[in-house]
Amino acid sequence: MSLKRRTYEIVELAGPGDHVSRAFDIAILLLIALNVAAMIAETVAAIRERYGAALWALEILSVAIFTLEYLLRIWSCTIHPRYRHPLWGRLRFALTPMALIDLFAVLPFYLPFVGVDLRFFRSVRMFRVFRLAKLGRYSTALRLIRDVLTAHKEELAVSLFVMLLLLVTASCLIYYAESEAQPDAFSSIPAAMWWAAATLTTVGYGDVCPITPVGKVLGAVIAVLGVGMFALPTGILGAAFVERIGKRKAASAVCPHCGRSMDGESVA
Amino acid sequence: MSLKRRTYEIVELAGPGDHVSRAFDIAILLLIALNVAAMIAETVAAIRERYGAALWALEILSVAIFTLEYLLRIWSCTIHPRYRHPLWGRLRFALTPMALIDLFAVLPFYLPFVGVDLRFFRSVRMFRVFRLAKLGRYSTALRLIRDVLTAHKEELAVSLFVMLLLLVTASCLIYYAESEAQPDAFSSIPAAMWWAAATLTTVGYGDVCPITPVGKVLGAVIAVLGVGMFALPTGILGAAFVERIGKRKAASAVCPHCGRSMDGESVA
Amino acid sequence: MSLKRRTYEIVELAGPGDHVSRAFDIAILLLIALNVAAMIAETVAAIRERYGAALWALEILSVAIFTLEYLLRIWSCTIHPRYRHPLWGRLRFALTPMALIDLFAVLPFYLPFVGVDLRFFRSVRMFRVFRLAKLGRYSTALRLIRDVLTAHKEELAVSLFVMLLLLVTASCLIYYAESEAQPDAFSSIPAAMWWAAATLTTVGYGDVCPITPVGKVLGAVIAVLGVGMFALPTGILGAAFVERIGKRKAASAVCPHCGRSMDGESVA
Amino acid sequence: MSLKRRTYEIVELAGPGDHVSRAFDIAILLLIALNVAAMIAETVAAIRERYGAALWALEILSVAIFTLEYLLRIWSCTIHPRYRHPLWGRLRFALTPMALIDLFAVLPFYLPFVGVDLRFFRSVRMFRVFRLAKLGRYSTALRLIRDVLTAHKEELAVSLFVMLLLLVTASCLIYYAESEAQPDAFSSIPAAMWWAAATLTTVGYGDVCPITPVGKVLGAVIAVLGVGMFALPTGILGAAFVERIGKRKAASAVCPHCGRSMDGESVA
Repeated sequence: MSLKRRTYEIVELAGPGDHVSRAFDIAILLLIALNVAAMIAETVAAIRERYGAALWALEILSVAIFTLEYLLRIWSCTIHPRYRHPLWGRLRFALTPMALIDLFAVLPFYLPFVGVDLRFFRSVRMFRVFRLAKLGRYSTALRLIRDVLTAHKEELAVSLFVMLLLLVTASCLIYYAESEAQPDAFSSIPAAMWWAAATLTTVGYGDVCPITPVGKVLGAVIAVLGVGMFALPTGILGAAFVERIGKRKAASAVCPHCGRSMDGESVA
Repeated sequence: MSLKRRTYEIVELAGPGDHVSRAFDIAILLLIALNVAAMIAETVAAIRERYGAALWALEILSVAIFTLEYLLRIWSCTIHPRYRHPLWGRLRFALTPMALIDLFAVLPFYLPFVGVDLRFFRSVRMFRVFRLAKLGRYSTALRLIRDVLTAHKEELAVSLFVMLLLLVTASCLIYYAESEAQPDAFSSIPAAMWWAAATLTTVGYGDVCPITPVGKVLGAVIAVLGVGMFALPTGILGAAFVERIGKRKAASAVCPHCGRSMDGESVA
Repeated sequence: MSLKRRTYEIVELAGPGDHVSRAFDIAILLLIALNVAAMIAETVAAIRERYGAALWALEILSVAIFTLEYLLRIWSCTIHPRYRHPLWGRLRFALTPMALIDLFAVLPFYLPFVGVDLRFFRSVRMFRVFRLAKLGRYSTALRLIRDVLTAHKEELAVSLFVMLLLLVTASCLIYYAESEAQPDAFSSIPAAMWWAAATLTTVGYGDVCPITPVGKVLGAVIAVLGVGMFALPTGILGAAFVERIGKRKAASAVCPHCGRSMDGESVA
Repeated sequence: MSLKRRTYEIVELAGPGDHVSRAFDIAILLLIALNVAAMIAETVAAIRERYGAALWALEILSVAIFTLEYLLRIWSCTIHPRYRHPLWGRLRFALTPMALIDLFAVLPFYLPFVGVDLRFFRSVRMFRVFRLAKLGRYSTALRLIRDVLTAHKEELAVSLFVMLLLLVTASCLIYYAESEAQPDAFSSIPAAMWWAAATLTTVGYGDVCPITPVGKVLGAVIAVLGVGMFALPTGILGAAFVERIGKRKAASAVCPHCGRSMDGESVA
């Protein structure tokens, strides 16, 4: 039991003063960074030819360490009151987003017999970084951003939905305007959606472009609406940050003269 | 009369606990989604050839259901006090934006004899979704966004007007700078407007580009002004969201002096 | 004197109930809109060939009316206490931005003997619209936007200056990175500025692109900094709008219980 | 000692009424502007051929003046209490960002024997402008922007980190989707990163574009996430500006209860 508790303390985030656990956190963080770098480097033909063996060794080593870490985490999670039950507690723990990311980070290695190419799943490893982002002083900033996104997820979802409606409408309109003049580029509404997405997000690759006068007028109007697509989520997030930062300050404001809280909500 | 009231309850939004009405709402929502998907799929040649008959059957079925729903809505709307009058009330109801959308969603089907191609009107069906967006918890978010856009429509209109002035000015200037060097791309001010719209919205397709030094300097200045075109509506919407979210909070705040609600609007 | 005062009332903005002055304002507004449309249409070869004479007649008529209006304005401006002096008052009035715009709107017509092509000065006429923008309910919105831009012009100027520094730095760096690989596109720093301006504003035409690895890394970094170039003025304007809209509301807020102003600043 | 103090007063920012020091500041500012202009002009072949000698003379003169100024600054900095120590004080002063910029502005000239081309270091001179930006009324605006960026650097760093994660993920996904169809443009993940950076920042050059259906869907989703990349830092900066401008106002507000200043920071 004592070994399990110590394991739990080490694989979970370091408490203050626990140097072993902290060293473990940093080692895992470095290994993740090394893995992502290797994953990127491996796709460059020149590097793959020259350092292929070393990259393969790193891959095996990483998967071994990540697998061991995952198993230790599953084994020791019953220390936490929420996951106390030996079976159901462990299952609930294994289904938390962070544990799933840990699983997907190693699973592809063990599934080479699956027909589809699962190599891109390796990029999931990168997201393991989030677990460790709780380290140190960036945690307040990360929590602020996460809180803001969570508190206003309905508004952001509605923005996304409005954008989707605009995307479909724009694609339909440009399809009817351009499909005769450019039967290749605007062969169907799904094809027109590629142009509409590039325009509404103001990316504007320019690989497909309206050429008819009607199409150009439509294109200009859609591009202007695209500006609004930026303004809506930006305005929502801006207001959300104002509210959060203001709340954080108000909670700690005290009247300098009488020592009472300036916060109207918490006055008795 | 009782049948009319029940019909009204079903075709209008579901009250709490009215499972029949709720099922109706969801069925209509699914039919709309299916219709939009069919409309998009139909333009892909491969799908049209293979599933043309099925799509046509879906179209006839949808129009039948939407028409029936529209007629039921018109028939039963007199239950609502605002549209009580058998003729004028129904007419007023038929001219509300939501009822017009319902009408335009089916009308093109009945007007094949009209010369112009009305098929793109089918995309109007998509907007029927807004009626059902009132369902459930997204309604607060949708109302917030609508309120913000309504309360600041003058500021947004002025932003749009400033953008229009900039667009015309930019087109004139670039026309005089580039029309000699590129008589095809910048053949006239309306042609130059296509470039100006793509630049001010920072889409930047690159199909038309200034090539003279004067044109490039102008282009850079116009692109920078385009950044301002994003900043203005975004700033306005940001402030509007701050104000709304603040007001929503203020409505639940308590005065620190007498303990009564600070909300001036709901005080007797 | 009475004629001069009446002229002043008519050519300046209409007071409430002064229907003659209001009709004059609207007539001038329509003439400006017609002029801008004619200026744009004239550059289209097909229209110029067919309606050239009519457009020329409109031009002469417009210049005549605008000149007359300008002279009446100069003549009658001495009614206003600020421009009372027959000579210096009129000169001061003639040098106000709005009067200068009125002058530049007609001047090019009278200067055909000047070597350079002054036709593009005609686009100045468009800005005469601003005088009339004071009409009606959009004036509050226009004033709000103008106030915000004026109150924070130092911050916006600093943003612009930071952008200029970034532009020059980015151009230098990309020039040294790409000039060997692409001696045509990046022949000099001024040439590289065209690319840098398109990238920092995220327009991204794609007519010039880095092709070396160093250039691409630089390009990506500069593009990310370009995102910051949007965030800075947008953040400033957002905060400015929050402040203005908040102030406007605070000035009119009264405590619902005791009738005293909720505004802490104006309490006796 | 008196000479050293006078030198310090002149090379540091002018106090009010010190016309000699102010003239020195403005002269240095003009020389910097001239230098930047020369550096840009020199890269244009036509100008270099014609005015090469003059530009070279300006370069030597500038380096001489900047070197002299740097030495005077190092010599006289001991006047300031923080840098009092003849050796360590001067070293600490030499390592301040502004002093390092001053050093890098002249160093490349003295290091022609170094193999690598250091000419682009000359662009560092431009940043000397920041020292003089403290002049006059723009200093408040510059300080506001700097304060906002400093106070929220964690949030901005987290935004940048989220963007980096998105960049790597997007590159991996698009590489697996497009590398078969376009082995040249998407030859490796680092090559795919160029496309991902251009898309996430909504620059969208269009030199590389997805062509497979999966790649286009991915591209559209990544472009939409790119909109979020703008919204996050803009929202953070917007909220930060709201907070700062509010604080500036609060500092001058008077408490409605006792009439004393509400500014908690300046109360004795």
